[in-house]
Amino acid sequence: MPSIPHLSVSLLLLLVTACANGFSEEKKLLHSEILKDEAVARLFELGKVSDSEEFLERTFQSAASVRAGSLIRRWMEDAGLQTWVDQMGNVHGRHEGLNPREKALLMGSHLDTVIDAGVFDGALGIITALSALKVLKIKGMLGNLKRPVEVIAFSDEEGVRFQSTFLGSAAIAGVLPVSTLQVHDKSGVTVQGSLRMNSIDISEENLLQLKYDPESVYGYVEVHIEQGPVLENVGLPLGLVKGIAGQTRLKVTVKGTQGHAGTVPMKMRRDPMAGAAELIVLLESLCNQPESFLSYDGQCAASAAQSLAGSLVCTVGEISTWPSASNVIPGQVTFTVDIRAMDDLGREAIIYEFSNRIHQICDKRSVLCFVERKHDADAVACDAELSSKLRSAVYAAVGPLSDDELLDMPVLMSGAGHDAMAMSHLTKVAMLFVRCRSGISHSPAEHVLNDDVWAAGMALLEFLESLV
Amino acid sequence: MPSIPHLSVSLLLLLVTACANGFSEEKKLLHSEILKDEAVARLFELGKVSDSEEFLERTFQSAASVRAGSLIRRWMEDAGLQTWVDQMGNVHGRHEGLNPREKALLMGSHLDTVIDAGVFDGALGIITALSALKVLKIKGMLGNLKRPVEVIAFSDEEGVRFQSTFLGSAAIAGVLPVSTLQVHDKSGVTVQGSLRMNSIDISEENLLQLKYDPESVYGYVEVHIEQGPVLENVGLPLGLVKGIAGQTRLKVTVKGTQGHAGTVPMKMRRDPMAGAAELIVLLESLCNQPESFLSYDGQCAASAAQSLAGSLVCTVGEISTWPSASNVIPGQVTFTVDIRAMDDLGREAIIYEFSNRIHQICDKRSVLCFVERKHDADAVACDAELSSKLRSAVYAAVGPLSDDELLDMPVLMSGAGHDAMAMSHLTKVAMLFVRCRSGISHSPAEHVLNDDVWAAGMALLEFLESLV
Repeated sequence: MPSIPHLSVSLLLLLVTACANGFSEEKKLLHSEILKDEAVARLFELGKVSDSEEFLERTFQSAASVRAGSLIRRWMEDAGLQTWVDQMGNVHGRHEGLNPREKALLMGSHLDTVIDAGVFDGALGIITALSALKVLKIKGMLGNLKRPVEVIAFSDEEGVRFQSTFLGSAAIAGVLPVSTLQVHDKSGVTVQGSLRMNSIDISEENLLQLKYDPESVYGYVEVHIEQGPVLENVGLPLGLVKGIAGQTRLKVTVKGTQGHAGTVPMKMRRDPMAGAAELIVLLESLCNQPESFLSYDGQCAASAAQSLAGSLVCTVGEISTWPSASNVIPGQVTFTVDIRAMDDLGREAIIYEFSNRIHQICDKRSVLCFVERKHDADAVACDAELSSKLRSAVYAAVGPLSDDELLDMPVLMSGAGHDAMAMSHLTKVAMLFVRCRSGISHSPAEHVLNDDVWAAGMALLEFLESLV
Repeated sequence: MPSIPHLSVSLLLLLVTACANGFSEEKKLLHSEILKDEAVARLFELGKVSDSEEFLERTFQSAASVRAGSLIRRWMEDAGLQTWVDQMGNVHGRHEGLNPREKALLMGSHLDTVIDAGVFDGALGIITALSALKVLKIKGMLGNLKRPVEVIAFSDEEGVRFQSTFLGSAAIAGVLPVSTLQVHDKSGVTVQGSLRMNSIDISEENLLQLKYDPESVYGYVEVHIEQGPVLENVGLPLGLVKGIAGQTRLKVTVKGTQGHAGTVPMKMRRDPMAGAAELIVLLESLCNQPESFLSYDGQCAASAAQSLAGSLVCTVGEISTWPSASNVIPGQVTFTVDIRAMDDLGREAIIYEFSNRIHQICDKRSVLCFVERKHDADAVACDAELSSKLRSAVYAAVGPLSDDELLDMPVLMSGAGHDAMAMSHLTKVAMLFVRCRSGISHSPAEHVLNDDVWAAGMALLEFLESLV
C-alpha cells in the first residue's frame, strides 16, 4: 500500500472499504493531485478574485467577474479545451471529441457570487468539471470522447446586480427576454451597458443567437454544493438531485407620508416602515404555517398544504427606506421577497394569499402598496436517465460502501435555484450535490471538505469515461 | 392708502384690522421688501445650495454646507454684522451695539438639512434674524442696540451625517463631548476629519474653547417652522414655544445566522430581518398605546401614562441588512429608533420597556440583539421672561387682532429638537414657531406662506427694537 499521508481518516476508510468491494484504490490515488489538491487550490484562488478587499463579491460583469472569467479560461485551456467568451459574458471551454456532429454534453455552473460569499457556490461545479477533463486529457482520452463536451462558466446565477437571475444560462437556453438588456442596476447602468463597458457589444439580435440548438445538445450536468444540511446528516459526500424548487421574487413597495419624526402624532401617521414591518412579520407566519392561512377543500388538498409546509421558504433579504434618516418618518420603504416551494401551485397560492393580505393591511394603514413580480421559475424535475447515469458514476467513483447504502444513496430536492433550472428549458438536466458544513452557504463560513471535492471530481470523471 | 398689490387677502385683512386697532400699517409695509420679498427669495436661494442635483441635502461639512455658510456670511455682512466661522463650522455674525461688555443676545438656527429636505427648516430662523437686523441697519439703529446681538448659523442640528445632533450648538453651549471628534460617518471619515477637509483644524482643546461664557450671554431666541399642524388648525401665523420634547435615539442591531434563502428550512432559521420586523411592530404598538404596556401604581401614574400617550412619538427612519441580497437570509439587521416625549420619566419608562421586550423577543428567536443609546436630550422648558418679551413683540408686530385672540395666542410644545435645546445648557432660551402647510416638514413639500415669513421677521424686528 502506497503512503497516503494526506488522506483523512474518513476517506481512508472509504477507500479501504471500496477496495474491499473490488474498486481500484490506486485509480483514486492516481488522480488526487488534480481532482483534490489542485481543484481545492483553484477554488481558493478563484475565491480571492473579488471586487471587495474585505469579502468575496463578484457580480455580473464587475471587474472581478471579468478577471475570474480570464482565470477560468486559462484553466479550460489547461484542460485541453477550446475557449471563448460569449456576448452575455459566459465563458466556454469545449472539446469536440471523436464526433463533432454528435450531441454535446454540457457541464458547468456559475462564476458570479453573492455579496460576502463563500468560495464553493458555483465555482465547485466549474472547477470539478475542468479537473475531470484535465485527468482525461492527461490520460490521452479526451480525443476518444464519443460526443463533444463543453464546460460553461455562467456569468450570472445569483442575480445580485440586476435582480434578475440566470442571465447567462437563460441566454443559452433561449429563455432570456431581450428586454432584460435594458434592466438597470442601482447606479443606472443597464445589462447592455455593463457588457459594453467590458467591450462586449450585445444587441437584441445577437442575444437571440446565443440560444443553443436543442438538437445539438445531449444534456446538462451540474455539480453544486448542497447548501443544506441533509448530506452532512446522513454522513455521505454526494447526493443526486431529483428536482429544483420553484421560485418567485417579489419587490414590495410601501408608500406613506414622509414627515418629521418629532412632530407628527402617532395617530396621524401613515408610516410605511411600520407597515413594511407588519408585512414582513405576516410573511414569516404565512411561510411557517401555510396550512393556517390557506383554505383547501377536501383531504387531498390538506396533504398538499402539508407538503407545502415541508418545502416552503420565504426570505426578505433587502430593505431600504427613503429618505433614510433617523429623524424622518420614511416616505417610502421597499423590500424584496424570495418565495420557494417544490409545489408550483402551492407557491402560487401563497403569493396570492400574501398579496391579498398586503392590500388589506395597507388599506387599514392608509399607505399605498405595490407588489411587483421580478422573477418566476417553476420547479424543475431532473431527467431520470441522465440522473441514473450520474448515479452509476457516483457508485463507480466512491462506493458503494455496502449493499444497504447503495439503496440509501440520498436523492434530494434543491431549495436553491441553479443554472440547471434555466438549462432545463433547453435540454435534459441532472445534478449532483456535494456535502457542505452545517448546511451553510452564501456566507464566508461555507465549507466543503477537500475529500468531498475529490469525490465530486471522481464522479464526473467516471461519468465522462462512460462517454469514451 | 398706498397701493399694495402684492399683499394677500389674509394679510390685507390683518393689516386693516391692525390699523383699526391703532397699529401702524405703514411701518409694516415699509419693511415688506426686506422682511418678506428678500427673505423669501433668500430662503429659496439657500434651498438651491445642495449636495444633490435632485433634492435638497446639506449635511455637516459637506461641500454644499460650506457654500451655504459662505452665502449666509455674505448676508450677515449685508446686515452690518462682523462675521467669522468657528472651528465646528458654525457661521457667526455679530454687532456689538452700544455696550460691547453687555450680555449678548444670541439668535439663529441651523444651516444643515435632512436628505430630501424642505427649504424652511433651519434656514427660516437664520434668514428672519438677518432680515430684521438688516432693517435695523437701514434705519440706522444697529449702533443703538443696548447689548451685542449675534446671529449664529449652526453647522449641524439634524445629525444626518454623524448620527449625533447639535454638533454646532452643543459646542457653543459647552456640552459636546470631545470624543465626538472621533465619531465617523458611513464612509469612515471622522467629525475632525470632515472639518480638516475644509481646512478647519479642530483639536480637543480648541473644541473646549468654543464654549461661550454664560456670563457673557443674555439669552437665545430661535424662530423655526412648527413642523406640526397646530398653527394651521387655529389659523394663526405665529406661536410661542413652551418647551421642547425630550428625545432619545437608539441603534438596534439584530444578529442571526446568514444563509441561503432557498435551503434553510423556516424552522431552522435565525432570521434577523423577521426579528427586526417584529421589534418595529412592537415599537409602534408601544408608542401608540403606552398605557397598555406600562404598569403604574396609583392614580397619579395613570395620568402620567395618559400625558405620555399625548406626546409620545416613535420612529424607525433607517434600516439596513447585511449582506443585502434578495436571495440571502441576512446575517445582521440594524435600525434606528427615535423616541420623543414631553415627559422625561415617561420616555425612560418606554425605553426600559422596549429594551426588555427586545431581549425577550430576541431570546425567543435565538438571535442576538444589541441596543445602543446614540443620543439623549431631556425635555427643555423655555424661559418665561424671555418668552414674555417675545410674545409682546409678536403682538406689537402682527396683532392683537382682538382681545379674545390675545388670550388665545397659541403656546405649543415642540416635538422636534432644536438648537435651543442645546443652547438651554448655556443660557435661557425662547422660541417662536411659524405656521407651515399641513404640518409637513423634512420633505420637499414643506411650505411656509410668504406673509408668515414676513410676520416672523416683523416679530423679531419688534423684539430687537425693544433692545434699542
